[in-house]
Parts: sequence; C-alpha cells; structure tokens
Amino acid sequence: MRAITITEPGGPDVLAWNEVPDPVPGAGEVLIRTAASAVNRADLLQRQGLYSPPAGASPYPGLEASGVDAATGEPVCALLGGGGYAELVAVPAAHTLPVPKGLSVEEAAALPEVACTVWSNLGHDLRGKTLLIHGGGSGIGTFAIQYGVALGATVVTTARKSKHDRLTELGAHRTIDYTDEDWAADVRADIILDIIGARYLARNVEALATGGRLAIIGMQGGAKAELDLRALGTKQGSISMTLLRARGHDEKAAIVRGVREHVWPLVESGAIKPVIYRRVPMSQAAEAHRIVEASDHLGKVLLTVS
Amino acid sequence: MRAITITEPGGPDVLAWNEVPDPVPGAGEVLIRTAASAVNRADLLQRQGLYSPPAGASPYPGLEASGVDAATGEPVCALLGGGGYAELVAVPAAHTLPVPKGLSVEEAAALPEVACTVWSNLGHDLRGKTLLIHGGGSGIGTFAIQYGVALGATVVTTARKSKHDRLTELGAHRTIDYTDEDWAADVRADIILDIIGARYLARNVEALATGGRLAIIGMQGGAKAELDLRALGTKQGSISMTLLRARGHDEKAAIVRGVREHVWPLVESGAIKPVIYRRVPMSQAAEAHRIVEASDHLGKVLLTVS
Repeated sequence: MRAITITEPGGPDVLAWNEVPDPVPGAGEVLIRTAASAVNRADLLQRQGLYSPPAGASPYPGLEASGVDAATGEPVCALLGGGGYAELVAVPAAHTLPVPKGLSVEEAAALPEVACTVWSNLGHDLRGKTLLIHGGGSGIGTFAIQYGVALGATVVTTARKSKHDRLTELGAHRTIDYTDEDWAADVRADIILDIIGARYLARNVEALATGGRLAIIGMQGGAKAELDLRALGTKQGSISMTLLRARGHDEKAAIVRGVREHVWPLVESGAIKPVIYRRVPMSQAAEAHRIVEASDHLGKVLLTVS
Repeated sequence: MRAITITEPGGPDVLAWNEVPDPVPGAGEVLIRTAASAVNRADLLQRQGLYSPPAGASPYPGLEASGVDAATGEPVCALLGGGGYAELVAVPAAHTLPVPKGLSVEEAAALPEVACTVWSNLGHDLRGKTLLIHGGGSGIGTFAIQYGVALGATVVTTARKSKHDRLTELGAHRTIDYTDEDWAADVRADIILDIIGARYLARNVEALATGGRLAIIGMQGGAKAELDLRALGTKQGSISMTLLRARGHDEKAAIVRGVREHVWPLVESGAIKPVIYRRVPMSQAAEAHRIVEASDHLGKVLLTVS
C-alpha cells in the first residue's frame, strides 16, 4: 500500500506518499480500505517530532479514517491510534463505527476524532448549561457548537472574527473575538472546552461558573502555567486534562460505544452536520497541513484516497 | 448567650468568651442549644483575619456543632456556615443530622464537617480504588482513612511518623512519613484528598493513577503553583478545588442528605468511629487552637459547653 511517511521531523514537505508494507490486522482488529482520513493538530505535532505515536501504534500519522471493511465491504469509520494517512489501516473492531445514515463514506472521516473528544469531555447532560468552546472554528469547535446546541445548552465560542457569522449559523448563541483579552470577564460557563492550555488557564478559571469544569484537550498555548487554587476554590471548580489518543483500548471502546448510542442519532437526524472545509488528495497531505497551520479554515480538512 | 468572639485578628488569645445577643432562627432554621463544637483549620484562619465568614453567616467561628434542638429537645448535630463556638446557634434544618446511634451528643460534634467534606469529595464508589489521604492524623484524615477502608479502598496516607501506628490501627494500608520528599514516586492513586495545595501540586499530579482525580480541600501549603498540563494529561487526570463552607444552601443540603444515607450507617455500625483527641471547655477555645496549631494531635479537638 501507499502511506504518508514522515521522512524526518520538520515542515509540511517532510510528508511523502510512499510505498510501504501493508498492515496486518491482529486479533479483534479489522482492516479498513481507506476512503478518507482527516487532519488533526496532533498530526502537525507528530510531523514536527513533538508527539510520538503511543506504543504499538502505526508510525504513520492519522487519528481517524473512513472506508470499507476489507473483509466484508461494509462502510465504516474509525478512531485510530495512528496510521490513517494510508490506503489500508488496521484498527480494533471496537474502535469502529458505522458510517452514519445520510453521509457519504468520505464525509464520515470528519467525525470520529471530534465526536469521541466532544462526547468524552462534555457528556450528554447539557440542557440549560452554558458551554464555552474555545477555537470554535476548528473541527472540534464546529462539532462541539452543534452538539451543545442540539442538547439544549447555551453555547459561547471564541474564534477569529472572520469566522463568527458561520459559527452563528451553526447555532452559537454568542461569539467572542479571541483577540479580545478580556473574554473571560462576563462569561460564566458550566463547562469550558479548551484547546489552548497554559495561556488561557487563569482566564478559563475566571470564566467558570460556580461548580464549573474546565476540560482541557490541547496545549496550543503551552503546557505550564500558574494555577491559583484560591481562584479555583472560589468557583468550586475542577480542571481535567485528557488526550483521546493516550487513552487505553477499553476506554476508547467505551467512548466509541457512547458515541454510537448518543451522538450518532444526532448526526443521522441532521442536528449535527460534519463541517468540511476542503478535500485534499492524501498524496498532497503537505498542502492539507499548510491549510490547518494557517488556521484560516473552518471545520475539517479531509485527505481523500482516489 | 455566650460565644467566642474574635476581639481582633491575631493569635489564640484574641478569642474571648463574651456575652452576645442570642441568634434568631429564620425561616426553615432550627435553634440548637450547643453541647459541643469542634476546631477546624478554617477557624484558625478566621481568627487571624485570613478567612472571612461568607455573607449571612454568623461572625463567631465554628463550622459544626452538636446539641439539642431548642424547640423539640431532639439530639442533633449540624454543618454550619459559622457560629458553632456559642451556646446557641441557628442553622437551616436541612443542614442538620440526627446524632448517630451509639454516640453521645458531644461526640457527634466531631463528625459533620469531616463527614460532609469526605463524602462530597470521595463519593462512595471506592471498592478496589487506591486512595491517598494527606494529613492522615487530622480530623479529615482520620475520618477519610476509616471511610475508605470501610468501602473497600486501599488507603495510603501521609502523616508525621509519630502518628503512623495509630493510623495503621484505623485501617491505613500504608503510612508515609510526610518529611520524605519522594512520597509521590511509588504511589499511584485513583483519588487523592489533599489539604496542602500549592506545595504538593506537582507531586500530587505525579502520584495520580491513570484517570485519577486530585481533590484539594485546603491550602496549608499555599495557593499558587505551576501546573504542568502535559504531566496532568499523561495521567488523563483532573483536579478539583472545593471549600465546603463556600457551597450554597441547596448544595450543602444535598451533601447532608447524602451523608445521612450513605455515611451515617457506617458510623452507626461502628465501621467509622469519631477520633477525638481532646475535649476543651469552649470558654478556653484559645487553648484548643494552640493544640491544633501545634499539629501534634490526632483527630478532632472538641469544644464543650457545660
């Protein structure tokens, strides 16, 4: 098969479409003939040598894919520990999901990572809650906004000004320009979904409602920051830091089951639509990485296999 | 009535046993004729002017008390927002608990604050879990150790070496000398109950098991510390900072109901015994504060009204 390999740590041009050995599915695994994968920020870090694949994972990038089960021909999509940027990928059957009714196989590649991340961090008890979603224009953001709205939450989101109209169309009740340093002043969120980390930590604590929960899933703004426990205590608050990729097999399987039961119906009803910014041939993954790095996109950038 | 008043912020000797107006119970409140109160660390901070009573709370110290309902004569104990160091105290009926069968009214004063704190932070799904309890010799610690053991947890605790034998008798499976700087190295706890705060933050994160939760309830080691989100993410961990006193009326009422249902039976069966270090007449509260400040005690110091 062909796969995107990382010739050496570096910029987008280190991504090369090369002939490599086919993956061999292990016990309990299925082999997917890939129709599409999608770019995640973790892929950019992996390309730069800053985020090693977990033990046992494929060396190729790609945390999600869609295609057909090579054995049965069934359309399927999957959450991956890696290896999505390839014509074939082996994955535990417990980490696969059916392609939601109404979506093409390609479109389904936009969903596993964001659906599993959002579901595992936000849960489904959101009616009447206020959510603050940072990076509303990202793949995670565009999904989380729709998910919160579908479940009856009030959704506040930060994003570039140029993206606000589109996020309002997706259902966001309030959009905040992320360059406004004072964004925390008048937000009081029951749950904050954050991809920035250190740079936002103090303001995120300030933006918590009483009993609120800050769910950090990315460190685009650094890993280390001062935490003021007194400020957190004033909010009776909590902070979690989780990375979907690092979760164990069984935990991922439980999340995938939860997504299938609670999130897939919202996709099949049309309450949540995958937001796809562009489709790029997988052989041109470097171009796709440049698009995501520029952060002008809105939603997911797919990598398609023809 | 008489109450302990804080004549000015300062050392134990600013505590004075003075005649003051009787409290007047409001709607939904009961008036308790106090048999005993107990010293909490927050009282020491309040005495020093470092911890103001929440809005609407009594100006006198004391976060718990036992006695009789002045209207009905029923033995009762209660979680208070303040005012326990007094002959009479008004408290919402929803924040009162019956005196557990088998305990004297006085002994019951040792329980409300620790039972509500431990219950609200540890929950009751502890079977097979590893708990790390810091300050095992404190009122909170001696209660949490017994509670964890009663619910099937493996309990690790840090304390002064001189207290270890007694904590082992209470059921602790492992005792760690808190002067050993390396205590985090080989502990992997599903839940950590911490009263130190900033000084232990990095080591507490290190001591979390995968998916573990750090429940901070005190800041004896300061409020501000660097948080390494990468380290927290490696553990898929979370951190909460809560102060029982700052919780709202309804939340306290829910905690008290939970304690009555889930914790009181463990006290009435003898699985958890209040650990009472000394009884001091309330008029000599200064002496009781000196005992707690020296930290040589084990368990609770009661203030009794004769």
